[in-house]
Amino acid sequence: METQRSGDNPLYLEDLQPGQRFYSRSIGISAEQIIAFATQFDPQPFHLDAQAALGSIFQGLVASGWHTAALTMRLLVDGGLPIAGGAIGTGGEISWPRPTRPGDVLSVESEILEVRASRSKPDRGIVTAKCETRNQHGEPVQSMIAKLLVLRRA
Amino acid sequence: METQRSGDNPLYLEDLQPGQRFYSRSIGISAEQIIAFATQFDPQPFHLDAQAALGSIFQGLVASGWHTAALTMRLLVDGGLPIAGGAIGTGGEISWPRPTRPGDVLSVESEILEVRASRSKPDRGIVTAKCETRNQHGEPVQSMIAKLLVLRRA
Repeated sequence: METQRSGDNPLYLEDLQPGQRFYSRSIGISAEQIIAFATQFDPQPFHLDAQAALGSIFQGLVASGWHTAALTMRLLVDGGLPIAGGAIGTGGEISWPRPTRPGDVLSVESEILEVRASRSKPDRGIVTAKCETRNQHGEPVQSMIAKLLVLRRA
Repeated sequence: METQRSGDNPLYLEDLQPGQRFYSRSIGISAEQIIAFATQFDPQPFHLDAQAALGSIFQGLVASGWHTAALTMRLLVDGGLPIAGGAIGTGGEISWPRPTRPGDVLSVESEILEVRASRSKPDRGIVTAKCETRNQHGEPVQSMIAKLLVLRRA
């Protein structure tokens, strides 16, 4: 099973095959960042105010799931999934088995599940990848099955 | 078919049934906002630089899909889906049939697909909703089938 990290050459459709795994760098998240993101995009008490969050089902401040998703994307773009021409998602399935909390340090492990050439567009294909985001305890905070548009070598 | 808008009373599990539809307010997005989000979370040329984006498959600057997702959440929280206790997603399926571009004005139409009481936790249930985000031309930029944790009336 081949593994790759940030800094490797960007990969084209021909370079990808099921079973390949990739590992991102890690990134921390603070209470201030959680509150700033939520103020702009997800202004709910359990994302905005540590005191109010104590009485919520989360029993403390937690990041918006979309903040976890956005940080996951940052980790993938920063070498976590070195696709030539960029990581262009067309969609996928996402789940948040547990919340991201202040002080968490996240990283992403990606596995290629399927590689399929386009029948109509010979310059590209669709790659299905599972991207699992974990906290510093190794616990998954997000799992995503993503469909990515990947170019063939010119 | 019942429809509701922002300002209505927040809804509990008992208030929801398949076929109900909800409509959000609308929100604009600028090139500056697209670039600011991408700088933080999705630093790829087609999200960062209008000139560089001209040569990409998007043929112009486009928002990160995660920016579209975050704005959709903002619209849902601001009355687009008035769930009592907050809009708490456990996951779902997401797709971006076309990109969000500078100057777009987005709004969300949500439809309740399924309402299911929890067997193990009598205070809550899981609601499946389809949330479609459209631009000012009525074209879908994001489609999401979301699983939401919804409380029963106390």
